[in-house]
Formats: sequence, C-alpha cells, structure tokens
Amino acid sequence: MLLKVAILGGSGYTGGELIRLLLNHSQVKITAITSERSAGKPVYLLFPNLRISDRFEHVDVKKLVEKADLFFLCLPHKTSQDVVYQLYKAGKKVIDLSADYRIKDPSVYEEWYKTPHLYPALLKKAVYGLPELYRKKIKNARIIANPGCYPTSAILGIAPAMKNPAVDIDSIIVDSKSGVSGAGRNPDLPFMFSEANESVKAYAVTTHRHTPEIEQELSFISKKDVKVNFTPHLIPMDRGILSTIYVKLKNRKQFTPALLSEAGRALDGSQLNELYQKFYAKEPFVRVLKSGKYPNTKAVKGTNFCDIAVFFDKRKNSLIIVSAIDNLLKGASGQAVQNMNIMYGFEETEGLKPFAPYP
Amino acid sequence: MLLKVAILGGSGYTGGELIRLLLNHSQVKITAITSERSAGKPVYLLFPNLRISDRFEHVDVKKLVEKADLFFLCLPHKTSQDVVYQLYKAGKKVIDLSADYRIKDPSVYEEWYKTPHLYPALLKKAVYGLPELYRKKIKNARIIANPGCYPTSAILGIAPAMKNPAVDIDSIIVDSKSGVSGAGRNPDLPFMFSEANESVKAYAVTTHRHTPEIEQELSFISKKDVKVNFTPHLIPMDRGILSTIYVKLKNRKQFTPALLSEAGRALDGSQLNELYQKFYAKEPFVRVLKSGKYPNTKAVKGTNFCDIAVFFDKRKNSLIIVSAIDNLLKGASGQAVQNMNIMYGFEETEGLKPFAPYP
Amino acid sequence: MLLKVAILGGSGYTGGELIRLLLNHSQVKITAITSERSAGKPVYLLFPNLRISDRFEHVDVKKLVEKADLFFLCLPHKTSQDVVYQLYKAGKKVIDLSADYRIKDPSVYEEWYKTPHLYPALLKKAVYGLPELYRKKIKNARIIANPGCYPTSAILGIAPAMKNPAVDIDSIIVDSKSGVSGAGRNPDLPFMFSEANESVKAYAVTTHRHTPEIEQELSFISKKDVKVNFTPHLIPMDRGILSTIYVKLKNRKQFTPALLSEAGRALDGSQLNELYQKFYAKEPFVRVLKSGKYPNTKAVKGTNFCDIAVFFDKRKNSLIIVSAIDNLLKGASGQAVQNMNIMYGFEETEGLKPFAPYP
Amino acid sequence: MLLKVAILGGSGYTGGELIRLLLNHSQVKITAITSERSAGKPVYLLFPNLRISDRFEHVDVKKLVEKADLFFLCLPHKTSQDVVYQLYKAGKKVIDLSADYRIKDPSVYEEWYKTPHLYPALLKKAVYGLPELYRKKIKNARIIANPGCYPTSAILGIAPAMKNPAVDIDSIIVDSKSGVSGAGRNPDLPFMFSEANESVKAYAVTTHRHTPEIEQELSFISKKDVKVNFTPHLIPMDRGILSTIYVKLKNRKQFTPALLSEAGRALDGSQLNELYQKFYAKEPFVRVLKSGKYPNTKAVKGTNFCDIAVFFDKRKNSLIIVSAIDNLLKGASGQAVQNMNIMYGFEETEGLKPFAPYP
Repeated sequence: MLLKVAILGGSGYTGGELIRLLLNHSQVKITAITSERSAGKPVYLLFPNLRISDRFEHVDVKKLVEKADLFFLCLPHKTSQDVVYQLYKAGKKVIDLSADYRIKDPSVYEEWYKTPHLYPALLKKAVYGLPELYRKKIKNARIIANPGCYPTSAILGIAPAMKNPAVDIDSIIVDSKSGVSGAGRNPDLPFMFSEANESVKAYAVTTHRHTPEIEQELSFISKKDVKVNFTPHLIPMDRGILSTIYVKLKNRKQFTPALLSEAGRALDGSQLNELYQKFYAKEPFVRVLKSGKYPNTKAVKGTNFCDIAVFFDKRKNSLIIVSAIDNLLKGASGQAVQNMNIMYGFEETEGLKPFAPYP
Repeated sequence: MLLKVAILGGSGYTGGELIRLLLNHSQVKITAITSERSAGKPVYLLFPNLRISDRFEHVDVKKLVEKADLFFLCLPHKTSQDVVYQLYKAGKKVIDLSADYRIKDPSVYEEWYKTPHLYPALLKKAVYGLPELYRKKIKNARIIANPGCYPTSAILGIAPAMKNPAVDIDSIIVDSKSGVSGAGRNPDLPFMFSEANESVKAYAVTTHRHTPEIEQELSFISKKDVKVNFTPHLIPMDRGILSTIYVKLKNRKQFTPALLSEAGRALDGSQLNELYQKFYAKEPFVRVLKSGKYPNTKAVKGTNFCDIAVFFDKRKNSLIIVSAIDNLLKGASGQAVQNMNIMYGFEETEGLKPFAPYP
Repeated sequence: MLLKVAILGGSGYTGGELIRLLLNHSQVKITAITSERSAGKPVYLLFPNLRISDRFEHVDVKKLVEKADLFFLCLPHKTSQDVVYQLYKAGKKVIDLSADYRIKDPSVYEEWYKTPHLYPALLKKAVYGLPELYRKKIKNARIIANPGCYPTSAILGIAPAMKNPAVDIDSIIVDSKSGVSGAGRNPDLPFMFSEANESVKAYAVTTHRHTPEIEQELSFISKKDVKVNFTPHLIPMDRGILSTIYVKLKNRKQFTPALLSEAGRALDGSQLNELYQKFYAKEPFVRVLKSGKYPNTKAVKGTNFCDIAVFFDKRKNSLIIVSAIDNLLKGASGQAVQNMNIMYGFEETEGLKPFAPYP
Repeated sequence: MLLKVAILGGSGYTGGELIRLLLNHSQVKITAITSERSAGKPVYLLFPNLRISDRFEHVDVKKLVEKADLFFLCLPHKTSQDVVYQLYKAGKKVIDLSADYRIKDPSVYEEWYKTPHLYPALLKKAVYGLPELYRKKIKNARIIANPGCYPTSAILGIAPAMKNPAVDIDSIIVDSKSGVSGAGRNPDLPFMFSEANESVKAYAVTTHRHTPEIEQELSFISKKDVKVNFTPHLIPMDRGILSTIYVKLKNRKQFTPALLSEAGRALDGSQLNELYQKFYAKEPFVRVLKSGKYPNTKAVKGTNFCDIAVFFDKRKNSLIIVSAIDNLLKGASGQAVQNMNIMYGFEETEGLKPFAPYP
C-alpha cells in the first residue's frame, strides 16, 4: 500500500520539485497539494513540466489530516510553527522545509527570525534532517526540520574536518554562490531576468539567517561554540550552490606530540582526501572527488548529490573545501525525500535514482 | 534477460544523453561505449553527471558485433554509412542518429551532404524513426534513421495540417530557434560562452541540411512535391528547440463546395485545435496545448515531449504553429530510445517516464 | 547654450538609457526626470550605472513646461495621449516613446489599443520618427512618434525591397526574437530570471500591437494595403532584437517584359545585396553586411546600429532578410536621440558615437 | 598632434577592448594592430562591434618601432619579456598587459610562471600600473606593468585597511568570481557555452598566478610579508569580477592604549566606511558605496569603475569587503588607458567617461 503524502505550500520551486520527485517515487501517493495563492488552479499551470490533473487546494489542516500520513511543509517561516504543531497533535509525521524547527535554541531563533518560537517543547522533538549526521534519529523522528540549502552545502563540506584538533574552529569562513531559484518564486525586481542576468553580487553580508544554522551544527559536531563568517552570493543561473570554505589549521609548533599524531592526517593533502573519502564512504549522495578535480554545480544539477573536493594550502597552512549541490534537491526537496525514505524504511535512494541530464 | 546495446561515438552531447537514458532503462544493458578521441578514458570524465566506471573504447566493428544486439550510432555523417552497412551485414539492428540513412533519394543526399551514398540499396531498408508517423514500420525495422532535431520539431508541428486541402503547400516556412548544445561539443569560437551568450543569430540561411529532410517527409504525407523555407537560429541557452511554422491557407473563394466542406475544419481556430488534439490523441509524447497557451522550451527540457500550439490568423488566413522539444531528447537520444522501445516491444515510455526538473 | 530636455517616466529601461545617452551628449542638459513610482528617490538607486545626484520628481506638466524645451515621454500608452497634447499646447517639442501617436488612423489605434484616441487632430501633426524614411519631416516636426522596437527592425529590414514590383506584398512574415528587457521593468512572473532563463517562447501570436505599426509603414511605402504575419519571441538575454523576415517573390512567368526588367535586380542574390547597400549608403546607423555574413544581436548591443543581411532563396524564389538592433537603442532611446539630433540640427550621430563593448 | 599608439596581440578580448577605447579617445591615433593568428584579416571580422577598415599585421618589432610612440602589449606571458625589452631599447614607452613585469622579485616570477625572467634589470624600471597606489611613479614611467584583473579587485578592496594595525595580515582571504571572458578567447571545452553556462566552479585553488601579485602589493603597503588565500571562480556571465575579501581584526584586548586609539576607526562599522570614503575621495574610478549597499558587477559593466563596500562583522570581529570591476576594463584595458592618460598628462578620465548601458 502506498504512503499517503500531502504537500503544503506547493506552488513555489521547492514545492514543485517535491511534487515531481514524489510523482517519480514508487512508494507514495500524493493526496493533497495546497497553495493559498493558487487554490483551485491546476498544478500544471504553475509547473508546465508536470502534466497532471491535480489542483491546488486551500490549507485547511483539519481537513488535510484526514487525507495523508506524512506532510511536507513548504510554508513561509513563522507560518510553519503552528501547522507543524497541529499536525503533530493529530498524530501525523511532518517534514518541514521551513526554518521554524531547525534552530534548537528558541532565543537564537528569535534573534535571527525576529519572532518568538511558540512551541519550544516541540523544538526538542524535531530532528535536523541531515542524513549524513543524523540518520538514526531521522529513522524515528516524527518531525524533521529539513536543512537549509546553504547549511547543507556548508556542513557537509566541513563536517569531516570538524573534529580534527588541528582545525582552528574560530577561523571558518563560508563563501557561497547560489542560483536565482534560491530566492523563491515571488516576482521582485532584483530577481527579474534583466537585473539578475550578467551580474554577481553578495547579499545579506553578516546577517543571513542560515548563519546560526551552520553554527549550531558545527558546534554540535565539535562540542565547542563555533561562530562562522557566512556570505551568500547571487549567481546568474537557475539552480545550484557552490560553497567555498576556508579553514585555518593551527600552527604545528603549538602541538603536543599527541596532538601532532592525532591531527597529522589533516595536515597533509593526500591524507586529507582520504579522510573525506572515508567519512562519506557509505553515503549514497555524497561524492568526494579525486584529488585535483573540481566540483561544479552543473555536475549535480537535477540530482541529490553533494560533490566535495578538499585542498590543502601549504603556504597558508589551511584547508579550502569546495562543495556543490543542487539547491532545490540536496538543498531542499531531494533531501526531504531522502529523509522520508529513511523514516519509512524505503530504499534511501528511491525516487532519487535517475541520472540527470547534461548539459 | 536484458537487451545488450552499444553506443558508437558516445562522447558528444547526444551520446551522453543516450548513455544516461539507457542507464535509467530497466530492460537494457550497455555493453560498449566508443569514442575515438577519448578511448581509454572513463566516461565520467566527460560526463560528470554519470558516475559510472565504464571507459570509452575504440570503434572496432568486428569486435563490437560480438558484444551487443542493438547499436546506437552517434558518428559523424558519412562515417555512419559504412558502419551501418557492416552491422547490418552482421545481422545486428541499428539506430543511426546521423543523417546518413534519412534521405531516401541518394541524389538528394549527395546534393546536400556533398558526398555520394555508397549503400543506396540499404537506404531502402532504413525506416525514418519518427514514431508518430511510422510506428508500425519501426516495429519491424532493422535500421532506424533517427530524425534530425529541427525536422522532428517541424514535421510534428505541420503533419496534422498537411493533408488538409486548404493548406497551400508552397507556403510553408519553418523558423527554428535552437540552444547551443545543438552545435555539438567540439570547441569552436562561435560557440564559446563569451561569443554565444547574450546574442541571437540566424545561420545557414537557405542551406541547412535539415531542409531536405523536412521536405521529404512533408512530401510523403501530402503526396506532393513540397519545398520549404527553413531558417535555424542560435539562442543563448543549453538545450531546446522552438519552431515557429507559418502556413498559408488557400482562399475560400477558390474552393469547390466539396473542398470547402472537407477543408472547413482547418479554416477556423477552434476546430483547428481539435484537429491537432485528435491527431495526437494516442501519442505518449506529443502534447497539444489548450487554446491560447504557448509552448516554451523550458517546459520540455529534460523530457521526450513535443509541445504544440496552433493559431489561426484570420487577418492573413494562415496558420501559425509553434512546437517545442528538447533537441537532445525528442530531437535525438530520447527519440532513439523511443524507437528502441517500439522495436523491441518494450513499453514505449520506458526509460523516458520521469518528470523533469523545473526550473 | 545647451538644449534643456526633460524625461517623463524615467524609471524604466528606456528611461534609463535615455538619461545615459543624454548625459553623454554634448549639446543638451537634463533639467527634469520624472517617475510617479520613484518620485523623490535618487536616480542612481534605480540605475547603478548612473552615479548622478539627480532625483526623480512627480509628473506635473504645468511645472515641467517651465523647465525644458524638449520632452521625452516614456509614459504608458494612453497616458501619453494627453501629456503630449498639453506639452504641444504649451509650445514645447515632444519625442513620444509610447505608441500613442504612431498609428495615423484613430480607428486602427482604437482597435489594437482598446481605447479611443482623444486627439485625432494632433495625430496628423505627429511624425513617425524613423529617420531612414522620414528625415526631412522629422527636421520640422514638433511631435515625434518614436517607433516601436519590433517595427524598427522589421521596417528597416523590408523597406529597400518594398517598392520592387517582384515582391508579393501579401506574403510578408516577420519572425522576431527579443531580449527580456523588451518586456519592461515591472516585476512579473514570466520575466523572473528562473522562468525566462534557459527558455524560448512565442507570445502574442497574431495579436501583438506592433503589427499595425509595421503594416502602416509598409503600406505607406508600397502604396498598397499591406498585412503581415508578425510573431514575437522571448529570448534569454538582456537586450537585442533579431528579426527574420520572409518575402515571397512573384513568379517570373507572370511578369511583363517591362516588369521583368524593373524587378530584375531583386530576383538575384548579388544585385539584391547591392540594392540594400545603395538604399542605406548614406545612413549613419544602418549597416548592410557583406554577402554571406550574419547579423547577430551581440554586434549591435549598446549601439544605435541596425545590421542587415539579405538572402535570396532560389529554390523558393523568396527573400530572407535578417536584421539586428539593440531594442533599447535603435529600438527606443537611441533612435529618440537620433531624432532629437535631426530636429535640432545637431550632428546626427552626436551622443551615439562611442563604439560599444564586446563581448 | 595625436599620440601614435600600437596594440600588439590585438585579437583577444583585452585587445578588442583596447582598440575600442582608443578609438573613442580624443588624443590618440592607432597606427598598428598586430595578431599572429589573424594577420591580414580585417579587425571587424573578429570584433563585429568595431566597423573599422584596419587590418591585423604581424608582430615585427623593428618595423613597428617606426610606427608608434606608445605600445600596448596584449601578448602571452613570457613572449612579452623580450618585446618589452626591444621596445624599451628603441626608446619607446610600453604598457604591458601581460604578467611579465608585474612581479618585482625574479625568483618569485620563476616560481609561479615556470620560466626565468631574462631581464631582471628592466623589472626594476617597470612600474606597477595601479594608479590609486602609484600615480606619481606612473607619470614618469617608461614601462607600465598593467595589473591583473583579480589583483586589481583585491588590492583596491584591501588597500585602505592594510595599514591599520588592527588588521591581522595573516588572515586575508580573497574569494573572487569572474565572468568567462576572463578565460580568454581561445576555443577550449570548459569555456564552451554548453559547459560554462548554468554552472559555477572554483579553479586553480591554491595555485593561481595572481596570488603572488596580490601578495607583493599588500606586502609593499604593509611593509610586512603578506601571504593570502586566493580562490578564483568561473561564473556564467560575459564579464565582471566580484571579489569578497575576508580580513580578521586583532583582539582589542591585546591592544596597547596607543594602538587602540590608532586602530579604533577600523573597529567600528561607521568609521570603517568613512575610512574607505576618505582613502578614495579623489579617485575618479573608485566608488565606495554608502553603508548597506552592495556592489554588483552589472553596475560596473562597460566602465572603468571599481565599486567597493565594507562590512564589519561584530560577531567575528572581522571585515568583509566586496569589490566589483569589469575584468576587461578596470581589470585590463580600461586601466591601461587610465595609465596612458597619466603618463601623457591627458585628463585621467579621457576615453573612459561615457556612462555604460544598463541592463
């Protein structure tokens, strides 16, 4: 019997990709797709790639709980807080693609999102849906806080190095480049073709809301209080995120012999690649490239892959890590499906297997 | 048991898409991929989307015939002539993506391709692989001449109207716009990013080799000698072809009552759409859009679909037909897989089913 | 003494380009720039390329007439009607970039623009601002109806052939491809980067408002009632229009000896190019390319040039003409400045001389 | 009397832009343009934007010295070494756009360029052509080493902060994003439209040759040995470089009162912007944006401007500086013309004044 799933807030790009992936999935059946703005309209009007007869309906949680067992939420931040709560109360499972249940500390959430979190108790039940770090917890979770696109690329890029004592955890800089679909689907001047095309710019410098999310997870891994510089950039392409991550290594001279031995592997380029290869050896969606190869977003476009390359800068005694994902897939909807697969015991790659077109 | 297939000339964009589609296909097994230029190299070096361990090998027909039952040929025009012949002699089936077996009249082939056809007898055995017109013949064919990208978009666009006596068959104009992948993968100045980007141009005006292919098929349908204006254009995008087709209708006053009755349906917009809807009603890969909707190449990107819209210009008593395909799929490799499915009795949509990403 | 000019409706792309060109112009001084939406804001906020201290002001015609002698109007269609009237009454000169004074026949205007023309008498005073056809009239005009972008590319492309008796004037088809800036600067879903990028589509098939404008001018030239097929397309690039124009020639057999002699030159490719070369020999902004060369929009980007190439299709006895312009310059603001130069006896190329960047 | 200038190696993008700028310049006359590959061909064949009758000629230094007084060299690295020497010996002035005379230390040159420098004595005569740092020396120079594109964006971005004792000079990271024209004009697979479009990638991580150039200049300013992390990226657009620069500040607690007072201004956001504003107050081509505004490459496309914004990250006690240039203008040919203007006492903005198109 197929799992009944509903998609709430299905008219944006992550919604559209979710619908697509779930239609391609052998174990599920979409029973409802909501959109306040487009209620009543056929889905194919907004997604010409999806020639299906379904129509968007209004978000009516009471009605919806009858229809499905698992709910994907692509609702705006803040709105999601309460809908998750209601669905949880009704005994349903939720994969929330908003940021509302990602930040564990309600005060940090309030500081960055400028609104209080009304369900701090529920926050504790939510699992941060990055399978490479939390696969076991995801298996048993009832609420998944699906990670942000930038944090996915950043955390996967740094995680393998994070526990190495040679890493100067105060030095981490994440410089990310994103395609325009990351800005959503609401018409707005800066994202018009004639404005965004043939241009690159940084935005939200020092203030982007994905910063505390990256910091939280790196802090969990390292068990220290990690703060990072995170700078997002807008790139003239449809989809894809490339994150270039700079990590300083501590000065060898400061090391005790024990530390030197323990940390040794990260101080040398060849072992570095091996460290990453091993860390992700069993991961179906992380590909650590061979030494000297460069990730590019075109290679992961349309896929759930995260491609990673690591470089050791001998002159600066630092690491440069480059990671590439499709912001709408491993950075959003693909990861959501991966989480569902883990939660329900489906094959983890189900619905995410087909090779993607090139170019 | 899986069908063994080989891909000859697999390092270009159509080759790469063929490999991808065949990897996604449940009934086949790729047993060889050749590339003279890249022999010995792993496939993923040229196609970062395909993380497979296969390597390109040299084209050695004698050796290859042992390996597979069906051969996809993505070889240059002229080269294909002889390879098809050898494979045919060896009892193999061939889907030839070159132009070598598309033109039935060897003198027309020689006129446009500036080289004689050395196997005119074999030409007669080859079936033009446009399923919407030749599905039955394809079923029993041993050689498929897989249609060109522009001809596919043009012929599917005009075919339903072609037999209507109201159509002035001397008036047909096909104005096509193609993404840059249509120019192939060989480095050449006009197709460098900085040259092709932010620009549109016409090329090969009055001389493009797809002209006789369009004319041949329209002549077969109408049983008259059809000549067309065909003008291709280069557009700054990766993939997709949009063809805008102009067809003049005869003056009603010239019609006999019988003709008026027979031709009536094409003279009026609402019946026109219906005519197209009916013509393609059972086709899995042709979507005739609702009245007033416009095809765009983004809606068919990554799919084997051909989207078609028809407009009646009352002021000019003419039809304007717009068709959109992905040049590498319905215009090449997708159609090749569709042909294989028909030849071998697989479900016609097998390997071509997944919905494609958007945007 | 510098000519005082004002720009009304200066916050869109044609407004911005006008400001730029006029700032680069040695004979004029901008005394006012209006924008209802952005009144009070500094100009550079909307045009980061223009680091000037001017601010947008409200359209207050009574106040504005004191400020300038020549007014450029980039106002919406319909709004322009009355503003032109008021400025004219106040003794000012106007270059109107809207469509309001282009169509000479008020009933045709009403049919296509769905609103009556309230100043039919003034319509007669307005001169269609295409210098290549109306230079003398422009010199003495007080109201210039600055041509549309598509009509400029179409009319310049066909004009030299139009009087040739061999041309079948019922056969003209104009297939145009435009960059996204042609759609204006108002945020709207179809023109968002993620929607318009990597896509081509036709739009407004049989209904685009530039159709009657093309027809009017071709009718004036040929002194016959000309109707055309005109189909615009949206192309993923910032700026540029390429028009591909199809013109059937009459059958030689139908010609009288006199006609054959008169029309001869247009029936043969080599003479055809010469015909065009001669027609535009003295034009500073039309470049007829050498035989076999193709216009592309990148070559005219940032310039006031119109590049034209003509091809004779012997098989179809027809002409194919390709013309390329920058939609915001020769298709709008550049042409407006050219018109101003003619009106005021400035050098015709003043402000339009600098070579443009490539690529 | 006009200054006679020659351009050696004029068929690439920087050559084309130099020709264009010099044609737009009121004080110079181009007397020769060379290109080995295109010798004999008319210039407009390679640069459709330049409809001039000049033809490329061979590089024959003996013949060329008769023709001009100032030579712009757009020759490959290494080739330039000797040509500069010969022209210098012949008493000519040279602006060398290659890297051959940028690195003052011959051993550093050899380390990064893998070839010895044959004219170390001449190296000392060459002036690094960054007007904002070396205007006086440029005035009297006979050899100008025109800066690289990435170094221009990086050095202008960091220079104002560099002398501040609060800056941790070991912490500098330059993450740069460049349009594809930066890769030159030779056809090569990675820069084909279908490969570079819809993709972002890092390249030459830890090994790019612009690294020692950035380090040399920052070391000169700070009088310390500066090493930087520099990572270039390829972005799908024609032109433009955006550099995002990360600089750590020292911990206030470590400061002596004197240092605290001296360094104070860079420790606070509002003073920081002021510091930059003052540093560049008299510069015609550097625009420090108002607090909170973001540079984007579209705003400087087609201009010689460098736009800079500075951000203070309180949480990380560090600076983030974003600078934007047009890689072919302020990053190459525009800067070369600016240097010429300084050398010859022309107005510094001559030939570089026109506002650029938008979008």
